[in-house]
Amino acid sequence: MTELSRESGVPVPTIKYYMREGLVPPGERTSPNQAQYEQSHVRRLKLVRALIDVGGLSVAAARDVLEKMSAGGGNPLYAVGKAQYSTTTLREHVEDDAWHEAMERVNKLIADHGWRVGPTNPARRALADVLATLARLGQDNLFGVLDSYADAASRLAVDEVGMVQGLADADSMAETVVIWTLLGDAIMASMRRLAQESVATSPNPE
Amino acid sequence: MTELSRESGVPVPTIKYYMREGLVPPGERTSPNQAQYEQSHVRRLKLVRALIDVGGLSVAAARDVLEKMSAGGGNPLYAVGKAQYSTTTLREHVEDDAWHEAMERVNKLIADHGWRVGPTNPARRALADVLATLARLGQDNLFGVLDSYADAASRLAVDEVGMVQGLADADSMAETVVIWTLLGDAIMASMRRLAQESVATSPNPE
Repeated sequence: MTELSRESGVPVPTIKYYMREGLVPPGERTSPNQAQYEQSHVRRLKLVRALIDVGGLSVAAARDVLEKMSAGGGNPLYAVGKAQYSTTTLREHVEDDAWHEAMERVNKLIADHGWRVGPTNPARRALADVLATLARLGQDNLFGVLDSYADAASRLAVDEVGMVQGLADADSMAETVVIWTLLGDAIMASMRRLAQESVATSPNPE
Repeated sequence: MTELSRESGVPVPTIKYYMREGLVPPGERTSPNQAQYEQSHVRRLKLVRALIDVGGLSVAAARDVLEKMSAGGGNPLYAVGKAQYSTTTLREHVEDDAWHEAMERVNKLIADHGWRVGPTNPARRALADVLATLARLGQDNLFGVLDSYADAASRLAVDEVGMVQGLADADSMAETVVIWTLLGDAIMASMRRLAQESVATSPNPE
């Protein structure tokens, strides 16, 4: 296990914790206090670490994502879709007037942009939750900018889906979708902050 | 305090916790066990709740954001910039070869897109941290998609900055920048998932 820790960069107590929580499979016992680990253990450990540390998932959410990711089975599109859905974490929410208006706005936005989205995609509710929060903060006068977000997401999705469809098999696709969906959030967050500074400090804004 | 809880939708024990942690100022005492709260308390409570629950900030990070937000002072652009910087949470990282390569890639990307970004913008390092994680997961063969993220962020920034520049005073600007930078991450995350499903299941992808 010391070697596994060295190769993956994850401390031994954390590895033990992930194993107890079922995020990483145990090694094959070769003696009472010795176990054999494969390259797949190193890979899985790095992935778990990325989902939790960079993707911001809880241990329970990471376990769910990993299960959905390896569900595989017949239809690759279905497997990949289930993996993608699992990357959306829903928080507690209140279904007040602000929330119902927000959900209507989400459905209108999906229709306006010609998106085909299944009724169970959890991102629908996640988006309504954020818009309701903004309305409660009195920020709904700025909702005009939402179409820019949708346009940006549309263009990005064409390249993101193209990147995944070029991959060899459903398992790599599901893994790449999970990693890029979650870490892509962090990439986009950083890039927005860099681009915002550039535009805000520009002497001749476009 | 019961009324404050009702109006803000935040439970009393949580309000007490936020006050102890210095996130919400105490009310004005009117008797030994009675305090007077203003509309500004309701507003602050809703904001704290949004930063922590929807923005995903820790209590310490939320305190830092609120301090930077109200720093105000002479130059509004400077105040707003400090508020925006405070919305980037940096995690522990390892400066190995993958990280140094990632940082070089970030600097090249900033140069390629003609962005002017100060050397202390924490999003530089946040982005390098994510790209290093992707490289360690063997996902660096897909880095071609990063230019699409940068293009999307550039276009979005023009509208986001325009929306903030239309506001009346530096305090509202700083508050709006903090709210929209953090909640905008959540909006973009949901929109990417909706647009991805639409493109992935489209019979005639563009």
